[in-house]
Amino acid sequence: MIIEHKLEERIRKKKTFLCVGLDSDISKIPTQFLNKSNPQFEFNRWIIDQTNEFVCAYKPNLAFYEAQGELGWRALQLTQEYLSTNYPDIVTIADAKRGDIGSTNQGYVEAIFDNLGFDAITLHPYLGQEALQPFLERSDKVSIILVKTSNPGSGEFQDQLVVDSGGTKPLWSVVAKQVVNGWNKNKNCWLVAGATYPKILKQIRSQIGDMPLLVPGIGAQGGDLESVLKVAKNSRGLGVVINSSRGIIFAANPKREAIKLQSLISANLRS
Amino acid sequence: MIIEHKLEERIRKKKTFLCVGLDSDISKIPTQFLNKSNPQFEFNRWIIDQTNEFVCAYKPNLAFYEAQGELGWRALQLTQEYLSTNYPDIVTIADAKRGDIGSTNQGYVEAIFDNLGFDAITLHPYLGQEALQPFLERSDKVSIILVKTSNPGSGEFQDQLVVDSGGTKPLWSVVAKQVVNGWNKNKNCWLVAGATYPKILKQIRSQIGDMPLLVPGIGAQGGDLESVLKVAKNSRGLGVVINSSRGIIFAANPKREAIKLQSLISANLRS
Repeated sequence: MIIEHKLEERIRKKKTFLCVGLDSDISKIPTQFLNKSNPQFEFNRWIIDQTNEFVCAYKPNLAFYEAQGELGWRALQLTQEYLSTNYPDIVTIADAKRGDIGSTNQGYVEAIFDNLGFDAITLHPYLGQEALQPFLERSDKVSIILVKTSNPGSGEFQDQLVVDSGGTKPLWSVVAKQVVNGWNKNKNCWLVAGATYPKILKQIRSQIGDMPLLVPGIGAQGGDLESVLKVAKNSRGLGVVINSSRGIIFAANPKREAIKLQSLISANLRS
Repeated sequence: MIIEHKLEERIRKKKTFLCVGLDSDISKIPTQFLNKSNPQFEFNRWIIDQTNEFVCAYKPNLAFYEAQGELGWRALQLTQEYLSTNYPDIVTIADAKRGDIGSTNQGYVEAIFDNLGFDAITLHPYLGQEALQPFLERSDKVSIILVKTSNPGSGEFQDQLVVDSGGTKPLWSVVAKQVVNGWNKNKNCWLVAGATYPKILKQIRSQIGDMPLLVPGIGAQGGDLESVLKVAKNSRGLGVVINSSRGIIFAANPKREAIKLQSLISANLRS
């Protein structure tokens, strides 16, 4: 509940659900950063300085850092340090989409929660609760489980109909049910539901009570912010983190894009 | 087929299906390596020098390296360089269990295939073929898809019954079917099936033709090598990679453990 509390405080204070995805693809970073000693970090610092007033969370995706090897790992570390030092009331999410067997996950727990110091990590459900226990046990951190992802082909398995309680339901619904009923003993699970499937997003919200949702897919991926705002909030008008990555960080004016989204969100927040 | 050919050559030459899992957990590495400039790499080099005659593949799990930050990433790089320089006919598998949306997976493709230079990577199926396309397009590399994992709780979702062609089948079977029928256009897909579920392993083999299987879970996890040998081979008596990690690398005498397993395998190989 520690991180959820931090999220709610930030949402209330800044009237925003916006998360900026720090998908700092080196091939897309403006040229003025490329001659710095660590281009990805310097770019992130600039983005953070431009956008922090309008966000509740930042979410670097690890793929873009691992593509730069050691230097990328250092950029990730410097970014998380910069955030925790200067903006400790903003939630930090490592978009890592990890999920291994139990004893191995301990390595990722050390890497992401302890050494880098992120508040939250995204996780694949496929290996089940028993495997993810090293993450779930960390009541001071958040495990964000993939339920319905934003990509065009997410239905291949996620929409498969599974036999359940005498009827059938889609796999995404079974995953959501298991997390809500069994995995969330430490009240530290959130779920991923893509903005590109607003009807399913609505069904997921109806199934999970007040559990926070991380919603990727607005902007470049085609999801619509206003549709998300209508269906994603919990009973207290909170509990949602809406991510935009490329649509903000590679815009001509990232600050203006962040303000635009935050204004829309603010107009839809309960007073 | 390039990597599958490399695997088959090695299996034939050394009469082995053995893969050593370089799960080089820093807290378990013998103390004599800990004062080296890069303990994980020096330990791996020693393990490789002890065991290479008896293996067809090495498989570092990235979690144990990421837990050491930049130094760990460097260890991974040095290990892969050491292998490709000295033992180019041994298959190298990055046990990364990745799986993101398509544009993001490109980052992991660069990291694992291009920069580090691994032959193969393990992948989560949950986001579907469309998302994994950046891996699948690489006909010079191998995508190893998780189907039935070795952990005790793998059944939570993987064994769920899915409605399929008028009947039902377990999710693991649906994943295997999709990979065999749709994802394998470049003949570069392999599957993961845990040694801890030999009956399911047998069913998977019956369903996938000659596609190679990566089989984790013997040794520390409780899977039995002889049961695996009975059911995992393809119609040509090949197409299987059997992994042991802790049972070899943290044994008092890793070489002796590797020989023991290779001898058992060799006795079961077709002449």
